[in-house]
Amino acid sequence: MATDAQQACFEAGIKFGSLYHQFAGTPVSPRSTRSLETAIAESIENQPYCESVTVAIDDDAVAADIDHENGYTELSGHLMEVEMRVAYEGVTVRTRMEMEDGYPLMKLVEVVEPDD
Amino acid sequence: MATDAQQACFEAGIKFGSLYHQFAGTPVSPRSTRSLETAIAESIENQPYCESVTVAIDDDAVAADIDHENGYTELSGHLMEVEMRVAYEGVTVRTRMEMEDGYPLMKLVEVVEPDD
Amino acid sequence: MATDAQQACFEAGIKFGSLYHQFAGTPVSPRSTRSLETAIAESIENQPYCESVTVAIDDDAVAADIDHENGYTELSGHLMEVEMRVAYEGVTVRTRMEMEDGYPLMKLVEVVEPDD
Amino acid sequence: MATDAQQACFEAGIKFGSLYHQFAGTPVSPRSTRSLETAIAESIENQPYCESVTVAIDDDAVAADIDHENGYTELSGHLMEVEMRVAYEGVTVRTRMEMEDGYPLMKLVEVVEPDD
Repeated sequence: MATDAQQACFEAGIKFGSLYHQFAGTPVSPRSTRSLETAIAESIENQPYCESVTVAIDDDAVAADIDHENGYTELSGHLMEVEMRVAYEGVTVRTRMEMEDGYPLMKLVEVVEPDD
Repeated sequence: MATDAQQACFEAGIKFGSLYHQFAGTPVSPRSTRSLETAIAESIENQPYCESVTVAIDDDAVAADIDHENGYTELSGHLMEVEMRVAYEGVTVRTRMEMEDGYPLMKLVEVVEPDD
Repeated sequence: MATDAQQACFEAGIKFGSLYHQFAGTPVSPRSTRSLETAIAESIENQPYCESVTVAIDDDAVAADIDHENGYTELSGHLMEVEMRVAYEGVTVRTRMEMEDGYPLMKLVEVVEPDD
Repeated sequence: MATDAQQACFEAGIKFGSLYHQFAGTPVSPRSTRSLETAIAESIENQPYCESVTVAIDDDAVAADIDHENGYTELSGHLMEVEMRVAYEGVTVRTRMEMEDGYPLMKLVEVVEPDD
């Protein structure tokens, strides 16, 4: 059987994969970054055990990514930072998405068990 | 070659398909309907020739769709109404998504050409 | 009211937007291009009035897009070509997605009406 | 810091969330279930540490879900079963998605550590 900490990490991973694959590809421009950040965070916070989600879309990166006359680009990992806190049976897991070598890496930042 | 009105209808269809398949499946609860409506509208308004998008997610339908203890459901056609206006070379197209026999139907409501 | 040709173009646009926003972001590598092409085509062919869909994912472009050690990338417009044929009330519409200035443009190629 | 087993569970969760939110909403009919199963499995197997993915879409459930004249439905959790095996630094994690009270639950089935 899995421990509570392992289960908490599994739940944290589900939220991250959900967030990324639900919203990657969304049309985005500097005009629509704030509403998209809010919707992503509030949407994923609906999921079980998800305590808080923070999404920061980088306006400058979005602007730089717009290389055609239409004035928008598609949301992708290199345009945003995400932090998340999941709590399961007393275990708290903090995760973060950040770029590493041009690839959006989802990282387990901290696992805090009740005994800690 | 396609006429401007045909091209305008094609563009309107693209926006509808984009909206539906980008956002269907998003976790939603009565707590997060407003932010999701705004993000969907502002996101799709980024697309070329898209003048305005209105999304109304039905809070009561969302609440009724929540049949498990987790307190959320997934966004689907029967939970929202969408209206859209696309303008291409002087032609204005209005579209609407509404339920018909339990299926979310995307409808061409009006095509207004410059001569009209 | 819309003409049959306008309605056919609207339907064609819906399929294109659906295809793009359903599948953009899918993890893809040269090992999985064939199965993804087939699934995309067969999936969208389910939609009303959709006669045929052809998807060609460019293996070389996928390989070139893999710039990290994990060995895959995300499906995006610049990695594939799409052709589609929609038929509505005797009107046939052919569409194609191709790159133009680095942006995946969805084009109306031909609208053939019964009288033509 | 996270243990290897916790990291393995986090990775397993990411794959599950990715799979679900990338492919939920895909148009599906009994004609296209096999190609969709294969594409989903091969797509997610591209992700890091993902050893194997098995997707079984229930043709009868798909057929029963088609309640409109168009002949297709949208892929959702109640139409498929998923099993997955993730390996990270010698730890093997097995997961399964199955229905519980009408809700597609993603479960951690087994975590096997090298010492076990």
